[in-house]
Amino acid sequence: MLIVLHNWATDKDVELVKKTITSLGLKPVAIPGAERTAIGIIGNQGWVDDAPFRAVKAIMEIIHVTKPYKLVSRDFHPADTVVKLPGNVRVGGRSPFLVIGGPCAIEGREQIFRTARFLKKIGVRVLRAGAYKPRTSPHSFQGMREEGLEILDAVRKETGMLVVTEVMSPEQVGLAAEKVDILQVGARNMQNFDLLTEVGRARIPVVLKRGLAATVEEWLASAEYIVLGGNRDVILCERGIRTFETSTRNTADLAVIPLVKSLSHLPVIFDPSHATGKRSLVPHMALASVVVGANGVMVEVHPDPEHALSDGPQSLHFKEFEALYKRIRGLEGFVKKSCCN
Amino acid sequence: MLIVLHNWATDKDVELVKKTITSLGLKPVAIPGAERTAIGIIGNQGWVDDAPFRAVKAIMEIIHVTKPYKLVSRDFHPADTVVKLPGNVRVGGRSPFLVIGGPCAIEGREQIFRTARFLKKIGVRVLRAGAYKPRTSPHSFQGMREEGLEILDAVRKETGMLVVTEVMSPEQVGLAAEKVDILQVGARNMQNFDLLTEVGRARIPVVLKRGLAATVEEWLASAEYIVLGGNRDVILCERGIRTFETSTRNTADLAVIPLVKSLSHLPVIFDPSHATGKRSLVPHMALASVVVGANGVMVEVHPDPEHALSDGPQSLHFKEFEALYKRIRGLEGFVKKSCCN
Amino acid sequence: MLIVLHNWATDKDVELVKKTITSLGLKPVAIPGAERTAIGIIGNQGWVDDAPFRAVKAIMEIIHVTKPYKLVSRDFHPADTVVKLPGNVRVGGRSPFLVIGGPCAIEGREQIFRTARFLKKIGVRVLRAGAYKPRTSPHSFQGMREEGLEILDAVRKETGMLVVTEVMSPEQVGLAAEKVDILQVGARNMQNFDLLTEVGRARIPVVLKRGLAATVEEWLASAEYIVLGGNRDVILCERGIRTFETSTRNTADLAVIPLVKSLSHLPVIFDPSHATGKRSLVPHMALASVVVGANGVMVEVHPDPEHALSDGPQSLHFKEFEALYKRIRGLEGFVKKSCCN
Amino acid sequence: MLIVLHNWATDKDVELVKKTITSLGLKPVAIPGAERTAIGIIGNQGWVDDAPFRAVKAIMEIIHVTKPYKLVSRDFHPADTVVKLPGNVRVGGRSPFLVIGGPCAIEGREQIFRTARFLKKIGVRVLRAGAYKPRTSPHSFQGMREEGLEILDAVRKETGMLVVTEVMSPEQVGLAAEKVDILQVGARNMQNFDLLTEVGRARIPVVLKRGLAATVEEWLASAEYIVLGGNRDVILCERGIRTFETSTRNTADLAVIPLVKSLSHLPVIFDPSHATGKRSLVPHMALASVVVGANGVMVEVHPDPEHALSDGPQSLHFKEFEALYKRIRGLEGFVKKSCCN
Repeated sequence: MLIVLHNWATDKDVELVKKTITSLGLKPVAIPGAERTAIGIIGNQGWVDDAPFRAVKAIMEIIHVTKPYKLVSRDFHPADTVVKLPGNVRVGGRSPFLVIGGPCAIEGREQIFRTARFLKKIGVRVLRAGAYKPRTSPHSFQGMREEGLEILDAVRKETGMLVVTEVMSPEQVGLAAEKVDILQVGARNMQNFDLLTEVGRARIPVVLKRGLAATVEEWLASAEYIVLGGNRDVILCERGIRTFETSTRNTADLAVIPLVKSLSHLPVIFDPSHATGKRSLVPHMALASVVVGANGVMVEVHPDPEHALSDGPQSLHFKEFEALYKRIRGLEGFVKKSCCN
Repeated sequence: MLIVLHNWATDKDVELVKKTITSLGLKPVAIPGAERTAIGIIGNQGWVDDAPFRAVKAIMEIIHVTKPYKLVSRDFHPADTVVKLPGNVRVGGRSPFLVIGGPCAIEGREQIFRTARFLKKIGVRVLRAGAYKPRTSPHSFQGMREEGLEILDAVRKETGMLVVTEVMSPEQVGLAAEKVDILQVGARNMQNFDLLTEVGRARIPVVLKRGLAATVEEWLASAEYIVLGGNRDVILCERGIRTFETSTRNTADLAVIPLVKSLSHLPVIFDPSHATGKRSLVPHMALASVVVGANGVMVEVHPDPEHALSDGPQSLHFKEFEALYKRIRGLEGFVKKSCCN
Repeated sequence: MLIVLHNWATDKDVELVKKTITSLGLKPVAIPGAERTAIGIIGNQGWVDDAPFRAVKAIMEIIHVTKPYKLVSRDFHPADTVVKLPGNVRVGGRSPFLVIGGPCAIEGREQIFRTARFLKKIGVRVLRAGAYKPRTSPHSFQGMREEGLEILDAVRKETGMLVVTEVMSPEQVGLAAEKVDILQVGARNMQNFDLLTEVGRARIPVVLKRGLAATVEEWLASAEYIVLGGNRDVILCERGIRTFETSTRNTADLAVIPLVKSLSHLPVIFDPSHATGKRSLVPHMALASVVVGANGVMVEVHPDPEHALSDGPQSLHFKEFEALYKRIRGLEGFVKKSCCN
Repeated sequence: MLIVLHNWATDKDVELVKKTITSLGLKPVAIPGAERTAIGIIGNQGWVDDAPFRAVKAIMEIIHVTKPYKLVSRDFHPADTVVKLPGNVRVGGRSPFLVIGGPCAIEGREQIFRTARFLKKIGVRVLRAGAYKPRTSPHSFQGMREEGLEILDAVRKETGMLVVTEVMSPEQVGLAAEKVDILQVGARNMQNFDLLTEVGRARIPVVLKRGLAATVEEWLASAEYIVLGGNRDVILCERGIRTFETSTRNTADLAVIPLVKSLSHLPVIFDPSHATGKRSLVPHMALASVVVGANGVMVEVHPDPEHALSDGPQSLHFKEFEALYKRIRGLEGFVKKSCCN
C-alpha cells in the first residue's frame, strides 16, 4: 500500500502516518518527492485495510498494490484450474470448449425435454434452464421454482444431460444442489455475499456471472468468497456490462476474458445472449469468444422463441443453434491447430 | 405498447403481429408511415409482456408505454405516502426532513451507545448501523451479525432512539425485524428479489437503496415487489450510481430525487456518504438534497473515523455532524418558508 | 510516480527500471514488499510521462501522483481566481452568484432582443445564445452562425447586456471574440485541443464545459491548455455527464463542484438545463448548485419554448425563470449569511 | 414519431398536439389506450424535429421511429460500400480484411521509415502515424505536426505504402489531404462538426472513429455529416468506449461491429490498441474482430515501444505484429471458407 500526502503535509503528519503503520505491525518507508511525500508500507502478507489511514486529513490518496483476492489469483496458483463435471466433461485449461445451451426459463416439461433431446442429438452435453427467475417487474413471469427443479432432475436422469440452473437465495442452494449438476449465481447476485458463502459450501461446481456494473477486481473478489468457503470449482462467466450504449442490451466486454485468464487460474466462459440481447449478434460474439480464449459459451436456445416467456428475442432457434455449434467446433479446431504452428 | 416494423415488412408480417395481439385479448391499431409501419396496442389494463412479439423478424423495435410498476406510481396513488415510525416520527409528504445518522458498521457496544447518545442529545431520532456488512473482499471485516442486532435492540431500549439496519438475506429478515425499527435493503441487493419479497412481508418500514447501476424504472419496480408483498412503508434512498468518474466513490444523482417524487408517491431520502465517499463533500451534498426536495438524509458519523473498521474516510466526526445538523435545520426552515411566499 | 512490479520480477528487471529513471535525470527509490516490489521516483518538478516505462513487461502498474495540470491547481495558486467582466461584473471567489440566461440558439433578432430586455429588467447581466450550434444530425437546424454573431453584437450595444456564445472551431474565435464578451467551449469540444489553444490566445474570458465523458482530471487538463496559452480567465462549467441512466438527458454531477473548487482556483458554474434536459428539474438543480458552492448558473430561457428550434423541453418560460431568479437571490443571501454564523 | 400523453391529458391537450402536427403539414393518428393516449405522426419523409412538441406539458414522452441519419443507412443504400484506395487496395464488402499498422505518433524520419519498410516487407499496405496528436495534458508531447506530414509524404513516395493520419482541426484538412491517402477523425473529435464538414469536402477517404461516449446512432449521424458534404468514402472505426471498468483503457465494444454493418452500408474497422490499452490483449481482440465481420484493423506497432513517446504499452513489437499479421491472414482464410460451406 502507498499513502500519498498533500503538499501541505507537515512533519507531524508524516509521523502520524508512520506511527499508525507501525501500530499495525508493519513497516513504513518514506518517499520524499519534489512536490509531495509518499509513504510505502512493507511487511504485509496480503491486503491491508485502509480504514485506519483514509481519514487522516493530510493524506491525499491511498493506493492499493495488493489485490482484494488471493486464492483465485494466478500469483497464488499458477496452473489453470480444470473443473470436472460428471460424465467426464471438463472445463478450463486445455479441455474442449464447453458449449452450454438451453432456454432462459423452464416453462414446462415438454419444452425442456424437447430442448435436451435436441442438444444431446447434436453433441451438446450441458443444458441450462432457469427454475428461479430474477425479473425486474413483479408483474412478469417469475419461474416455476421447485417444480422446475424437479423437471431438471427428471431430464438429466432420462437423457444423461448435465444441467445448470440459477439460485437466487441461500435457502435454495441445498435443494438445487441435489437436483442439478452445476449451480449458477446470476449477475444481479454477484455481490449477494450470503449466497456466495452458501454456494461455497456446495459440493458441485458454480458458474459465477459478472455483475452488470462489477469491475474485474470485484468479480474475482466474489469468486474468492466461494473458494474461501471450500468450493474450488468456480467457472467465471462474462455476460456484458451496463454502459451508456443502449443499442445492445449490454456491452459485451470480451477483452476481459484474456485479461481475467491472466489474473486468475479459473476457467472463464461467455454468455453472448445476455451480452447482446439480439439473436442476430449472438453467433458472431459466440465465435469471437472462441478466438479470445474463453473456455466455453452459454447460449440461449428455445424450441419456439416467438412464444418464449422470457428472453425470446435473444434466443436462437434449434436450426440456428445447430449451425452455430458446428461453426464453433470448426473454429475451435482451427484455433487450436493454428496456435501450435 | 407500440410495435415498429422494418421498412421491408410485408402485409403478411403486419397480419401476423395483429393476430398475436388479438390472441392476447387486446386490440391492434395500425399506424402506417411514410418509411415504416407501426402497430399500437389498445385495451391493456397494465404492462404487456413483449415476449410473444419480440422475436418476429419483421419487428424493428418494441416500445413500452406502460411502466413495469403500478402500485408505487403517482398515477395509481396521487397523494404522498407518509411513513409513520414509532415515537411519532414521520417521513414523506410535509413531514420534517428526516436526519438519520450513525456509523457504517457496528464495531461494539461502546461505539454504538456513544453515537446514539450523541445523536439523541443534538435532536436526531434515528440511528443507522450495520450488523450484516456487504464487503467486496472476504478478507475484510464482515460485521458483528446477530451480536450486532442485540446491541441495536439494547440501544433503542435504553435510549429511545429508532434504529435502521441492513438485511442481506431473506433468513435475516425475521430476527432483524424484531430487533430494529426500520430494515434496509442495500444497493447491491436492490434486485435480490427473494429478499424484496421477504421484506415485503415484514411489518416495519424498509429503506430501499438504489442499485449501483439501476435505472429509475428498475428501482421503482423493485419497490413494487415490496409493496406488492403487503408492505407499503417503503422509503427510497438515492446513494449515487457507478459511472466512469472515479474522483468520487460514486456519482450522486440528485436530479432523480425530484424526478422520482414526480413518478412515485413514496418518500425519497439521500445518502451523501456513499454517494461521494469523501467527508469534505458530504455536508455540501446533504444540504443540496434539502433544496431538491428530498425527505431526509442518511449520513455516516463515527466517534473516531480515523479508526473506523469501514467507511472511515466518508464518516463525519461528531462535531462536523452536529454543525451539519444545525445547517440542515436552518436550511429546511428557509426552504419551507421561502417556498410559501 | 510509483512503479509497481509483478511478483515474478527479477533483480535484473528492477535494475532496468532504475536505470531508465536515472537516464531521465531522476532518482529511483525501491520499496521492497512482501509480495512485490515498487519503485518510487524522486526529483521530478512535475508530471513525468510514463511512456519510457509502461512497456517493461515486469511492470504491473504505473501510478501517477503528480497531476497532468499545474497552472490551474490550488497547489500552484491557492487564492480563488476572480474573473472580471465588463461593467464591473465578476465571477469567482466571494463575488455574487452569477446568473446567465438565454435561449439555446439564436433564432432571430426579435427573439434575442425580447430575451435580453426581459433578463435586463429582472436584474440579470449576462445573456447566453448560440450562433454556431453543434447538432447530432446534419438534418437539424445548425445555427445562424455569423449572422447570429451580429445580432449578439447589436443586442449588447443596445441593451448593455454581456453576451456569451459558443465557438466550435479555431477560425471562429477571432470574429466571435470581437462580437461577444465571453467565449464558450462546449462539452463536445472539451478536448478539441486546437480550439483550446486558440481561445487561450483570446483576450476575453472563456467558459469551458465539461465533456460528456470527461473525468475531473481531464477537464482541468483542458483548462490548463487555455491558461498555458495566456488566457487566465477560465470559468469551468459542469453540465452533466453521460451514464447508463436515460431518465434524465445527462447525470448532473453536482458533487464535483466542491471537489473541483478544492483542486483548482478557477470559478465553477453549473448548467442545470443540459444536466437534466427537463424543465421541471431545472429550478431544483439550479438552487442546489447555490448550496454546494457553485459560482453561478447558466440556464436556458426562451420567450416561447414550445416553438424553440432546439432544447425547448429544457428551456424555462420567462415567468418560470423570473421566479427561479428570485429564489436564487434569496437562497444566496441565506447561504452567505448562515455560513458566517 | 409517436407522442405519448400523460394519463391526465384532456381532450384539449390532444387537440393541441394534433393541431401542431397539422401545422407542420403532417397527419396525426390518435391511439387511445386504457391508461393513456398516444398520437402517431404520418406523412413525414424523414426525421421530424421534436422541438415543437416536447414542451407541451401533457406530453409524457416523445418516441422517434425514424433515425437522425439517412444517406449512411442500409435502408437508403442496401449494398455494401467498398472504399477504393490507391494501388488497388480496397476496404468493405468482400474485399480482403484490411490491416493498418504503425506507431501512435511520428517521432522522426528514421522511426517512420523503419516501420514502413517492415510493414511493406510482411505484406501490409497501409501505414498509420500521427502528425497532430490530441493529448490530455498540454505538458505531454504534442506531435511533429506539419513536419510530420512531410515525413509521411516522403515515406509514401519512397516506399509506396498508403498512409493514414489524424486531423484535429478544419484548417489542417487541406494540407493533410495532399500529403496522405486517408484522413482520420479521432474519437475526441467525432462530434467536431466543423471538422466533419471539412473532411466531407476532401477528395480522399476518411476513417471516422467512434467517440468515447458516442452511441451507435450518434456515430452514424456524424458519418452522415461527411457523406452529406460529398465524401462517400467513410470508414467507421470502433475503438472502445468509456465505461466504469478501468482494468482496460477502454471497453472494446465488438458487438456493435455486426450491428453497425446491419444498419449501415459503410465499412467498419477495429482498433484493438486503443480499445484495450494493453499489448497482451491486442492480438486476441484483433483476431476476434475478424470473426465478427470487421473489414479491417488498425494496430499500433513501434520499432521500440519501450521508448515510444506515446501509447508504448499498447504498441506491439515488430515480431509480435508479424505473428499477429500471419494469424489474421490464416483466420481470415478459414472464416471466409467455412462461411461458404
